[in-house]
Amino acid sequence: MVEKIWQKKASENAHHTEIVEKFTVGNDVQFDYALAKFDVLGSLAHCEMLHSIHLLKTDEWLLIEIELQKILEEIKQNQFVIESGIEDVHSQVEHLLIQRIGEIGKKIHSGRSRNDQVLTDLKLYLKAEILDIKSLIEAVFSSLIQLSNQHKEVLLPGYTHLQIAMPSSFGLWFGAYAESLVDDLELLLASHNIINKNPLGSGAGYGTSFPLNRTLTTELLGFGALNVNSVYAQMTRGKSEKVIAMAIAGLAGTISKLSYDMCLYLNQNFGFISFPDTLTTGSSIMPHKKNPDVFEIMRARCNRIQALPNELIILTNNLPSGYHRDVQLTKEALFPAIQSLKECLEMLQFMLQHIEVKKDIVKDAKYNYMFSVESVNQQVLEGIPFRDAYKNIGIAIENQDFIPNHEVNHTHEGSIGNLRNELIEEAFKRVIAKFN
Amino acid sequence: MVEKIWQKKASENAHHTEIVEKFTVGNDVQFDYALAKFDVLGSLAHCEMLHSIHLLKTDEWLLIEIELQKILEEIKQNQFVIESGIEDVHSQVEHLLIQRIGEIGKKIHSGRSRNDQVLTDLKLYLKAEILDIKSLIEAVFSSLIQLSNQHKEVLLPGYTHLQIAMPSSFGLWFGAYAESLVDDLELLLASHNIINKNPLGSGAGYGTSFPLNRTLTTELLGFGALNVNSVYAQMTRGKSEKVIAMAIAGLAGTISKLSYDMCLYLNQNFGFISFPDTLTTGSSIMPHKKNPDVFEIMRARCNRIQALPNELIILTNNLPSGYHRDVQLTKEALFPAIQSLKECLEMLQFMLQHIEVKKDIVKDAKYNYMFSVESVNQQVLEGIPFRDAYKNIGIAIENQDFIPNHEVNHTHEGSIGNLRNELIEEAFKRVIAKFN
Amino acid sequence: MVEKIWQKKASENAHHTEIVEKFTVGNDVQFDYALAKFDVLGSLAHCEMLHSIHLLKTDEWLLIEIELQKILEEIKQNQFVIESGIEDVHSQVEHLLIQRIGEIGKKIHSGRSRNDQVLTDLKLYLKAEILDIKSLIEAVFSSLIQLSNQHKEVLLPGYTHLQIAMPSSFGLWFGAYAESLVDDLELLLASHNIINKNPLGSGAGYGTSFPLNRTLTTELLGFGALNVNSVYAQMTRGKSEKVIAMAIAGLAGTISKLSYDMCLYLNQNFGFISFPDTLTTGSSIMPHKKNPDVFEIMRARCNRIQALPNELIILTNNLPSGYHRDVQLTKEALFPAIQSLKECLEMLQFMLQHIEVKKDIVKDAKYNYMFSVESVNQQVLEGIPFRDAYKNIGIAIENQDFIPNHEVNHTHEGSIGNLRNELIEEAFKRVIAKFN
Amino acid sequence: MVEKIWQKKASENAHHTEIVEKFTVGNDVQFDYALAKFDVLGSLAHCEMLHSIHLLKTDEWLLIEIELQKILEEIKQNQFVIESGIEDVHSQVEHLLIQRIGEIGKKIHSGRSRNDQVLTDLKLYLKAEILDIKSLIEAVFSSLIQLSNQHKEVLLPGYTHLQIAMPSSFGLWFGAYAESLVDDLELLLASHNIINKNPLGSGAGYGTSFPLNRTLTTELLGFGALNVNSVYAQMTRGKSEKVIAMAIAGLAGTISKLSYDMCLYLNQNFGFISFPDTLTTGSSIMPHKKNPDVFEIMRARCNRIQALPNELIILTNNLPSGYHRDVQLTKEALFPAIQSLKECLEMLQFMLQHIEVKKDIVKDAKYNYMFSVESVNQQVLEGIPFRDAYKNIGIAIENQDFIPNHEVNHTHEGSIGNLRNELIEEAFKRVIAKFN
Repeated sequence: MVEKIWQKKASENAHHTEIVEKFTVGNDVQFDYALAKFDVLGSLAHCEMLHSIHLLKTDEWLLIEIELQKILEEIKQNQFVIESGIEDVHSQVEHLLIQRIGEIGKKIHSGRSRNDQVLTDLKLYLKAEILDIKSLIEAVFSSLIQLSNQHKEVLLPGYTHLQIAMPSSFGLWFGAYAESLVDDLELLLASHNIINKNPLGSGAGYGTSFPLNRTLTTELLGFGALNVNSVYAQMTRGKSEKVIAMAIAGLAGTISKLSYDMCLYLNQNFGFISFPDTLTTGSSIMPHKKNPDVFEIMRARCNRIQALPNELIILTNNLPSGYHRDVQLTKEALFPAIQSLKECLEMLQFMLQHIEVKKDIVKDAKYNYMFSVESVNQQVLEGIPFRDAYKNIGIAIENQDFIPNHEVNHTHEGSIGNLRNELIEEAFKRVIAKFN
Repeated sequence: MVEKIWQKKASENAHHTEIVEKFTVGNDVQFDYALAKFDVLGSLAHCEMLHSIHLLKTDEWLLIEIELQKILEEIKQNQFVIESGIEDVHSQVEHLLIQRIGEIGKKIHSGRSRNDQVLTDLKLYLKAEILDIKSLIEAVFSSLIQLSNQHKEVLLPGYTHLQIAMPSSFGLWFGAYAESLVDDLELLLASHNIINKNPLGSGAGYGTSFPLNRTLTTELLGFGALNVNSVYAQMTRGKSEKVIAMAIAGLAGTISKLSYDMCLYLNQNFGFISFPDTLTTGSSIMPHKKNPDVFEIMRARCNRIQALPNELIILTNNLPSGYHRDVQLTKEALFPAIQSLKECLEMLQFMLQHIEVKKDIVKDAKYNYMFSVESVNQQVLEGIPFRDAYKNIGIAIENQDFIPNHEVNHTHEGSIGNLRNELIEEAFKRVIAKFN
Repeated sequence: MVEKIWQKKASENAHHTEIVEKFTVGNDVQFDYALAKFDVLGSLAHCEMLHSIHLLKTDEWLLIEIELQKILEEIKQNQFVIESGIEDVHSQVEHLLIQRIGEIGKKIHSGRSRNDQVLTDLKLYLKAEILDIKSLIEAVFSSLIQLSNQHKEVLLPGYTHLQIAMPSSFGLWFGAYAESLVDDLELLLASHNIINKNPLGSGAGYGTSFPLNRTLTTELLGFGALNVNSVYAQMTRGKSEKVIAMAIAGLAGTISKLSYDMCLYLNQNFGFISFPDTLTTGSSIMPHKKNPDVFEIMRARCNRIQALPNELIILTNNLPSGYHRDVQLTKEALFPAIQSLKECLEMLQFMLQHIEVKKDIVKDAKYNYMFSVESVNQQVLEGIPFRDAYKNIGIAIENQDFIPNHEVNHTHEGSIGNLRNELIEEAFKRVIAKFN
Repeated sequence: MVEKIWQKKASENAHHTEIVEKFTVGNDVQFDYALAKFDVLGSLAHCEMLHSIHLLKTDEWLLIEIELQKILEEIKQNQFVIESGIEDVHSQVEHLLIQRIGEIGKKIHSGRSRNDQVLTDLKLYLKAEILDIKSLIEAVFSSLIQLSNQHKEVLLPGYTHLQIAMPSSFGLWFGAYAESLVDDLELLLASHNIINKNPLGSGAGYGTSFPLNRTLTTELLGFGALNVNSVYAQMTRGKSEKVIAMAIAGLAGTISKLSYDMCLYLNQNFGFISFPDTLTTGSSIMPHKKNPDVFEIMRARCNRIQALPNELIILTNNLPSGYHRDVQLTKEALFPAIQSLKECLEMLQFMLQHIEVKKDIVKDAKYNYMFSVESVNQQVLEGIPFRDAYKNIGIAIENQDFIPNHEVNHTHEGSIGNLRNELIEEAFKRVIAKFN
């Protein structure tokens, strides 16, 4: 156990300390690996700034910089390890530095607290994840638009109240989920804007008496702006996590719904779509059975993600301002959720490459009546009053004379015959552009 | 009970119908009043569009328009009533129209379904509420900035782990909540952008065979864009509610935290702030007692609001695409929450006008040690190595020689001595500007 | 505005008081009507106890008792009104008493605080609601068992992964939900046991110096035991609400799932059940359409109820021990949920009286393969090794020679042919018996 | 990758299969270790039953039994490993069995499905965890009662609205949390009763054509009763997890609240309790600082646990009856939460051994007024009308003549002077006894 600065003498009660550390640190170290790279980047910027305000001499700064760059390289090569007895990534980096360059290594902590350091790491990490997620969304979006265009002629029953209601199409269905991603992206953008602010220099949440140049670190770290107020900077811990949780919950809601549709459409009573046998699990004596395990797990993962904002609210709510260690646990709730969402997006993209849509679904007689509204509207457009048209078709149905016309002629924006996917693509690009 | 179009003959089982309606309609009508105005506005735009595509003759359109304007006026005058036996606001408006101008009134339903009609009403309503909330936030923001500037010299103990840690100030404290609103506004803006799209013309969720001009209604209703895809337009039901719920939950998180601080600072063991007797409740034989009922209720209301996104997720999750009546219940969860948040913002604004801050808090000896870090840093800035400075002050404390220097000299951006509230104000204005 | 004891002089700032009261009282009064009866019952017991310890003289006690009984009668006759300007039911009862019998009326407050008074009311009310819910469950349980027995011969496809898998039956399906209620009842019983304890006499949460006889009021009010510790008694505020919320969320989970099945089985692609036209909504030109509005709303209501425990957790969490006014808002979250659940149980009971099950569902060829496992097992029971049997049937299926045997012969406990509903009924009765 | 029974031929698309398995299995295997022991116990009972109904010959049964016992021993010795490419614990056990005794090993799957097998494992596991938790609660309960008795004379300020209100005591405070555990235990008991039922024999959720003796396996496995109905047995998946989640959330609520009190009472403005330096973290130059990291992390862990029921509801809600693979993910949400709660109970027990309470807290003048109500009551008990007594003390306070009498004389059940901890202990024992 490395001695902490506030431990004046070696504890007579090392056993107590061990019990306390085991309980309080818990699983935290494993999540710290995700922050390692960003911790070093933060220190690099901090040291350059310390040099600029003469709290580091040039030779000290250069020495530290060289070693930090080496550590950064080790992290990228997966050679970085948080040693047993070292409680977090920040201590490990400092520990390596001191091991390698001696006392000077300690100076990187001047004018910085563990609180603003971890906040900085976290925000840099979350920013990178947001951009990763954005890229994955772009791929899925393209696939959906492409599938929508490809299958725009294939009709699908449209349901209301889960009752057969109106003709729909695969063009509409795929396109709907593409457009859903446009709106989900707005929420991701908001989380990006909120997170893309520099907390470094806010110290333990009350600033410091060192004459830091926070504007400089903002630029060096590529943040879009400052978290100006030091007390507020500390408040963004917990809040940043909640905001990105909301954004990914929104996305997860879209993917969960699509997964639900997939499971339903794969069900034999519906039977609208199919996947190659290698992507479903089955039974050799029930050849019809194509268990949609991928979409069940995808739905389940996305539903867990949708529970995340609430979990973070319960975790951080009703705490007065100022740092509380409770926030340490946001990492173990949030980080796996982010990875899970990314895996879902990748898997969805993969599955979309292999989806097979069934033609001629609506030829089945059970879908006949959904064309009745079409016939009524047709008569209305030909000049027959609605009430009369409605009565005419009603009588035909009663007399079992009704012949559905499968030639659906929808022309307005966003309808079967006029998807206007290019409008959706433009809207998507507009939001994407705002990330920069 | 007004006969519904799908009820071919008077029911022999009126009693059954009554039971079913009572259960399914529930409290819904009371929330529909909030939509009345927007329902008429939606119909006005729809009819102008129907006229433009020749589905309404000019005289029909003008007749309808005049009557709808009258109904709109009645709504504004609070003379509009949803009659007993009429199940919702849409039926009531249609009912009035037919009563007054006869069969022509029925034509406003051409090319429109109850589904896209209620979606349009809802989005217009939510847009208006978002702008209302934005205005209320602007007022609270100004008060917080003003209080921050006014009390910037008054020191306050800063806590970490709820332990006395570092000097803070009322300037930082008020300013922190102002800056929090800047970020909350980003989320509100995202909800605005998502909601500000026109679903009208998407029918029951699958479009229609009428040659609607949806771009025209988008312009007439002042929406920023189209919900292009008809299937997606229907998906925005439930999703719109969730997104605004997330945005107001974010705001509620800020107000809840501030309320918590207020309760703690009003507690006699802290005793940092006060309010006039008329704004607290007390006890004549416990003159110290100033129960912070307003802030307890404010916190509690805001905590209920923070539970809302989760409630809407549970309500709408795991439903396949297409309309389900379940979504009717989003109104009874969301609408009261919006009103409650607005009342909280108004009440907070009111309370901030009367807050009294205590001077000289930090003179109390129990806060002495929080100035020790200042003294260490001071020695470091004077050139003494950190380790030595730390040891010097540590010895002084042990020997009880430590004399705190209450002259806090913090100079960096966002610190006690350099709040940079003008940066926060600029950031706030930038987000506000994006609402237009 | 009735003057409060702690308001020494008429407020010069009546306007302030009004603003504060409007905000803090909010909608609370409307929920207090549910407590009125129990408030008077609590006062009757309290006064009898005060008399027993000589804090009320006999004539005082009798005078108070007569008036309280009158007020109780007025409440039962719906003649009781909480007057404008009176903030809650307790004040209203006291107000009436003082109006009618003068100063003596004030004595009912001796040795009692608003905190233990409202707690007592709440627990008596919740106990009554729990017993109401129990009765409603008994009715639904009977219907489900009866339907299970009635339709035990009618086969139904059983799904896994929403894929056609194995034969099931209406006997199993109805019976499953009956058995689900047995377990739900365990949770309701736990909530009953927790709530059925007397908080009266715990004062504001720290007891009182009056020599109260709390054992006597426990007996008089019919509570099963004492909330012994006064600090804990106060902690049961919020906790009682959470516990009953969990219990009704459990029930709501069962009803929600049943409602989901109902919606799915009413869907035309499944088509397993039906209801009379008067209980569904439809379309005259889509005669197949039978919208299951009742079950959509039932599911939605039950899903909102399932969000309730979480809401109450967020509302009451992270508050230190001792009364906080935040708990006032548990009423507006919980009370409507209880009523909604009761309405769902009543409506479910009503619908079950009218459900029609379709015979011959499994004759449809798409269900053939689900009998393949039966055939394999049959061969195994006849002595053929599983692997061989499996191969035999597999080949038959591949050669399209497989002939399903619809005579399902399941004999073990809880299978199609041996439902053992009487075991479920016994288990149900055992839990019911524990409520007394 | 071990070949699955439904994979007729080696896949040409092994890569696809790998992608699918990686995504669907995810982290599941690591949670399966907790089930290993119970999986073997389930198989032992199942085989004994198969033998009893002549589906296993005696020599087959004995052979299997011996090997299963060996595997059980290996599990206990931590020698059991789920090999790479084996998807779950059930497959691994079967794999070992077949490796060791050949084809006969496959027979343990007769009359059993993966679905009822995992359900059985899960229920046996959860039962064991419930009993573990019960034992941990017993230890904490004893400590709390002992501390309550030990410090019953030490007064503590009692707060309402977080305002100093009335005298309380450490006796009341510790005792309150002891009594809280009594009620929490009721919920744990309910979860025990619900989980303590045998699902084995329900197959994939629709029973089987094998003439299983489910009553026998119920006895062999020590379950209290049968999950009778096979469809219901499958429904208990997800529901069992939800119910125990509710029970541990209840407990977590109690521990979270106690942790919050601990953090507040350790705060220097309150300063009611203390812990040895080895159990808090501090700062050498802020000797007053004793960061309550243990209680912050305990509170945070317990708050995450309180979010669990909601997460499981979102995960499993709105799925029709029948197995869905979504439920696989309940394990990764629930299992770590159970371990975390157990660690919290252990840590709490440890910390309670070291808590130090401060005497003479109420001597501080700021607590004087909380004795004013005592003085009023004293005068009332001496025969002075309440109004007059109230006025007398009020005047004394105004004239600054009020002298608090620190001799609190509370005598009723559950008050400072009459804790009645023995009643709480009896109630505790009564609930404990019902677990058997």
